[in-house]
Amino acid sequence: MSLADDREALRQAPVGVFDSGVGGLTVAREIMRQIPNEKIIYFGDTARVPYGSKSKETITRYARQIVRFLQEQRVKAIVAACNTASAYALDEIEGEIDIPIIGVVKPGARVAAESTKNGRVGVIGTEGTIGSRIYSTYIKEINPEIQVMGKACPLFVPLVEEGLWQDPVTDEIAKRYLGGLIDSEIDTLILGCTHYPLIRSTLGRIIGEGVTLVNPAYETARELKELLEREQLLNEKKQELGMNCYRFYVSDMAEKFQSFANSILKYGILSARKIDIEHY
Amino acid sequence: MSLADDREALRQAPVGVFDSGVGGLTVAREIMRQIPNEKIIYFGDTARVPYGSKSKETITRYARQIVRFLQEQRVKAIVAACNTASAYALDEIEGEIDIPIIGVVKPGARVAAESTKNGRVGVIGTEGTIGSRIYSTYIKEINPEIQVMGKACPLFVPLVEEGLWQDPVTDEIAKRYLGGLIDSEIDTLILGCTHYPLIRSTLGRIIGEGVTLVNPAYETARELKELLEREQLLNEKKQELGMNCYRFYVSDMAEKFQSFANSILKYGILSARKIDIEHY
Repeated sequence: MSLADDREALRQAPVGVFDSGVGGLTVAREIMRQIPNEKIIYFGDTARVPYGSKSKETITRYARQIVRFLQEQRVKAIVAACNTASAYALDEIEGEIDIPIIGVVKPGARVAAESTKNGRVGVIGTEGTIGSRIYSTYIKEINPEIQVMGKACPLFVPLVEEGLWQDPVTDEIAKRYLGGLIDSEIDTLILGCTHYPLIRSTLGRIIGEGVTLVNPAYETARELKELLEREQLLNEKKQELGMNCYRFYVSDMAEKFQSFANSILKYGILSARKIDIEHY
Repeated sequence: MSLADDREALRQAPVGVFDSGVGGLTVAREIMRQIPNEKIIYFGDTARVPYGSKSKETITRYARQIVRFLQEQRVKAIVAACNTASAYALDEIEGEIDIPIIGVVKPGARVAAESTKNGRVGVIGTEGTIGSRIYSTYIKEINPEIQVMGKACPLFVPLVEEGLWQDPVTDEIAKRYLGGLIDSEIDTLILGCTHYPLIRSTLGRIIGEGVTLVNPAYETARELKELLEREQLLNEKKQELGMNCYRFYVSDMAEKFQSFANSILKYGILSARKIDIEHY
């Protein structure tokens, strides 16, 4: 095979996307929308979900196992579609592998820093993401003048997974979680957990019209596109959508994952296969 | 050492208690109340919590690892203080080890079967416990005439862990979850998840005065006492309460565990030690 053939084979390789569970599907959905020619291999760590309340050490070990699994599937690039894993594990893993890996935190931080007019940015996420202060760190690298206020919202993920996307209970909990950020007069709010875009309309209504919502899922898909272009890895061959393009793996509860995935993805997923992630 | 000395050493050995996280502390608390001379080694699987939404296969593997760890600590008996683990893993593990192991499901089922007058029993718990229909199976072994109605309540655990034990949001969610059971005119309700005793007053108010609440934590401590008496394993030597009596291990987030434990146990716990459970 010639070098040109090799390069073309690499372009046709899938992108690996992983998350602690179903949340990262909002990132996969944005990739499907923005770069529809790309194949995707998605891994949801449903046996060990949630990541948000676990330690850096544990999350890094989990992320390493998943990256090994995705490399075995010969992906050309990896997206850590999980804020906690991006916050805790990305820097270390980046130095250990020879394919590009991006997370959801940096793209979200960059756009928030560009978007704020009054220099007051709010971030909501899991305890892990907020406790790591990772959004604040990245935003201050761009502009140290910006004040970043974080708020952990541990009930949002279970509320989303229970299907209460539009519900008075979710409204009430959102009012409590967002009250302090409203008082701080933020003009930009980062949805720092991949589940949150699914309650975006509730969050937008409660935080108020003057506040720009930043969805890192959208920004990450944009950054992935730029990265693939820059590295000449973008797949220009049009795909037939279907099982060959999008493959889903989980560490547990494949059926439950499938039904959630089918509720948020445009294309029904044919099946999710269970693998033993602890062996990687 | 004589046989009598051996037997005495065995009596002095601790009881092992495990759960997916903090919920099993309500069982440990009952053991401390009812048989205060017993030493306890508690393991909370905080790296892999929650169990309620995972498969039988996964939960059985986790429980086996924990049982190996507890045996290494030379416990004389084991309490699976977790409804999901009791439902999924107990029958298999019982045949694999040479010390007694009991779960929380059988004691709860027995008392519910004795308590109901109209033969209509409700069970609330995680998806795993309810999906397994384990309470129904045990109750029908005792009295096949009893009708058992299960309802999974996935938001209760996060609400308890967020501290909303007395809160209008918990009331509202409880009304939704319990509505069908109220309509079914149950006269007995099993709190089929170890977190639920912490919102017992909310549950009791909403389900109504005519319904008997069964707390498997209480019944399990009673059954443990009877078991230890029967096997001549009850420790009759009075303990000095403190670190020697109660030892706590977790698989992650030891500090967070400690602070939750201190909010529900009478005796402040000195420390929780983190271990790598996946190596067992």
